[in-house]
Amino acid sequence: MSEVKKIKPSLSKGTRDFLPSEVAKRNYIFDTIKTVFRKYGFEEIETPAIERLETLTGKYGEEGDKLLFKILNSGDYLKDVPKEELAVGNSQLATKYIAEKGLRYDLTVPLARYVVQHQDDLAFPFKRFHIGPVWRADRPQKGRYQEFYQCDADVIGSNSIINEIELLMIYLEVFERLSLKVTVKINHRAILKVLAEQGGISVEMFATILDKLDKVGLDSVLDELNAVGYRLKMNDLLQQFIQGTHSKQVHQFENYFNGTWGFEDKATNEKIVINSNEAIKACLDVAKVINSSELHEEGSRHNLVQFDLTLARGLNYYTGIIWEVVANNVQMGSIASGGRYDNLTEMFGGQNMSGVGISFGIERIYDVMEELNLFPETISQGVKVLFVPRDQSVEEFTFQQVQQLRDANIPAEIFLGNVKKQKQFNYTEQKNIAYLVEVGENEVQSGKFRLRNTKTRDTQNDITVSEIIQKLS
Amino acid sequence: MSEVKKIKPSLSKGTRDFLPSEVAKRNYIFDTIKTVFRKYGFEEIETPAIERLETLTGKYGEEGDKLLFKILNSGDYLKDVPKEELAVGNSQLATKYIAEKGLRYDLTVPLARYVVQHQDDLAFPFKRFHIGPVWRADRPQKGRYQEFYQCDADVIGSNSIINEIELLMIYLEVFERLSLKVTVKINHRAILKVLAEQGGISVEMFATILDKLDKVGLDSVLDELNAVGYRLKMNDLLQQFIQGTHSKQVHQFENYFNGTWGFEDKATNEKIVINSNEAIKACLDVAKVINSSELHEEGSRHNLVQFDLTLARGLNYYTGIIWEVVANNVQMGSIASGGRYDNLTEMFGGQNMSGVGISFGIERIYDVMEELNLFPETISQGVKVLFVPRDQSVEEFTFQQVQQLRDANIPAEIFLGNVKKQKQFNYTEQKNIAYLVEVGENEVQSGKFRLRNTKTRDTQNDITVSEIIQKLS
Repeated sequence: MSEVKKIKPSLSKGTRDFLPSEVAKRNYIFDTIKTVFRKYGFEEIETPAIERLETLTGKYGEEGDKLLFKILNSGDYLKDVPKEELAVGNSQLATKYIAEKGLRYDLTVPLARYVVQHQDDLAFPFKRFHIGPVWRADRPQKGRYQEFYQCDADVIGSNSIINEIELLMIYLEVFERLSLKVTVKINHRAILKVLAEQGGISVEMFATILDKLDKVGLDSVLDELNAVGYRLKMNDLLQQFIQGTHSKQVHQFENYFNGTWGFEDKATNEKIVINSNEAIKACLDVAKVINSSELHEEGSRHNLVQFDLTLARGLNYYTGIIWEVVANNVQMGSIASGGRYDNLTEMFGGQNMSGVGISFGIERIYDVMEELNLFPETISQGVKVLFVPRDQSVEEFTFQQVQQLRDANIPAEIFLGNVKKQKQFNYTEQKNIAYLVEVGENEVQSGKFRLRNTKTRDTQNDITVSEIIQKLS
Repeated sequence: MSEVKKIKPSLSKGTRDFLPSEVAKRNYIFDTIKTVFRKYGFEEIETPAIERLETLTGKYGEEGDKLLFKILNSGDYLKDVPKEELAVGNSQLATKYIAEKGLRYDLTVPLARYVVQHQDDLAFPFKRFHIGPVWRADRPQKGRYQEFYQCDADVIGSNSIINEIELLMIYLEVFERLSLKVTVKINHRAILKVLAEQGGISVEMFATILDKLDKVGLDSVLDELNAVGYRLKMNDLLQQFIQGTHSKQVHQFENYFNGTWGFEDKATNEKIVINSNEAIKACLDVAKVINSSELHEEGSRHNLVQFDLTLARGLNYYTGIIWEVVANNVQMGSIASGGRYDNLTEMFGGQNMSGVGISFGIERIYDVMEELNLFPETISQGVKVLFVPRDQSVEEFTFQQVQQLRDANIPAEIFLGNVKKQKQFNYTEQKNIAYLVEVGENEVQSGKFRLRNTKTRDTQNDITVSEIIQKLS
């Protein structure tokens, strides 16, 4: 390797290295989430980073196809490209000849493939979680990377609303464990669909307009609904939704769909009465989910789970309840999201199985926790004690002492670096090591040491290794 | 997604999915190794899967360059290829225009880049571990994948032999925790180098021939040494090495290099006396490492750490001690390896820092542990209790009971799938759930349940949820 020409070390754009302290913090989030997932019966799976392009292409829309990272075939990859196409230099046409593999774009399409491929080996309802990197050839910007982690839990093969309730419980427990105050917003596709249809526009258009409410305000949304010919008068209704809603209020929403309440037609001022079992069921389901969260709240959590009609993302995918979690008191988009979907496995020829899932946006959760200073001091702690030999002649003796601590399962280290005091100090500082012991000829002779607390600088003199073990066990 | 044409689900060749039980077993290995790494003061880092091809190319030899997975540039990637080169259709020439990123081939080159790039943020000696997938476009075969995990610990920036001793301790502790009986083979490049030079051949050729001893036997090795003109008579020496060696014997090897012993010249029968401080130091270092393992052995481990002159892999990379671990009583190559190397960071313009590291071959360790049936039954355990509602009317009540267990931090599940007994049985079986509770109208009325042990089939009747919590806490 010594003949290699020297190059300046740098990362591929949109990718990151993680320092030990960052990995410790990320693991803290992952471990918290995993503990809760497991407590609820979710099991971890893994799928490869590399998938056949055939598996990935066409699943994320035209825009998504462009963002797939494609892997060049090995060997003489150009040999299969027809000469005339090569001469034209059309990249789009050439891709199919030169790349048959790609990097996964999310964990959902691999899940669909996995469930169909391994259905005989899985227990249904299949409750899995999966945490791992995904790749997108997006233009990198603050908080957006080309390689980032996703963290998903899904239940495949059960229609029960209890699944939604359990997933909501997982949200609440994870964020409580992380000391992160959040609001969970819930909506249901059927409610949006019925309101859109009765207003004479498509659910997609309706959703797109409502979705902007946060950014542009109520008046603009009403204007825009007007402009596309939406005919129901919704001022009061939307106003109510903006303020957040308890389960009791959601129960009242049934009235909008069971024929007892009339929407006003903006043009004719006539009352339009909606009768939709689908929408009623949706309201009841949403109410049930919100209600069960309230059962488990202790005062402070009250109000944290809200119905929100303007929550309308992912409607090309979700078919039932949808939700999104935002952190309170921080300007940052949603930090978790999910919902119920049908037909996940259909694209791979699987039987129709309903699924429901949640996804934690761990990159954003990390940023929010940094901003609010929520990471406990202890998580980036290194070993408990650093033994520093004063010179090389006592290294082996020092190692023997350290080894006794390790034999007692106390994480400990011997410092084998630069003898300058400042370097040693930096080392304990940077690795957040609680105690320091210096070892010289005196210590070798007496078998007694001085244990120094690196934070308080308190020292304990004439202490034996057995006593150190006892103290730190 | 419903318009997508259906395709048969399949993996890209050389990649794998992992079932929940497999992930549990892999995590058991990872967690064991991580615990020991941390106990010795190693901290976890992460680097991206995608690196600039500039960083990777030329580091693994010509063969390695071919095995790099290259990622197609985004957009109109052909536009930068000179028209005339495109017309020729030369893949090798085209690559530099159409791919500037690749997937990492190992964790070592990324470590070198990382150390140079972040040197101001790291504590030296830098002790890091890294566990993650790497990718190689190798022809897949049994036990060889295109995507597989590496698991490395390295110390950068310390020359002390104590590092080698600590890494050996890590081997011994990890494999003891995994209940895996192993032999650690140790050698030193300087010993090979001096013996090669004195015999009149290159160290690479010498190493290549010795490396075959396991496969072809002593006579063939001696023949081959003869054929390439190696002039020292080595029959006795090699014989001795084959049988495995204790530290006391390694101490005696000094005599081969301190002028007290003479090798016989095969042609002239003259005595050739070697005087090499470098080789003496190497013998002493090897003896020290083996010796310290013996200090910590308790009878049964005796003999597990052996000097082995024929261990000679990676000599284009390693510059000091090298080692390799094999599992006893199993036909499988080495399951761990490592050694000391210099100049790791030089290729990225870093100052010369010596490093020493070990690598666990976790894919092979997994296979060995499966073969020897060493995975504890408990590791693939799901939740402790499965509550099964007899019909939908009692689902919500059942959920409330399960939630009480979870509130007491007992992993528990409600079964929300197919009501057929067989399906429920399969579910507890496959998820390895210890207890089962069925819930019907009676249980709702009485608040008392029957707790069934799914293994022994013992039941405990008329038990309340509080009592279940008490029992399982």
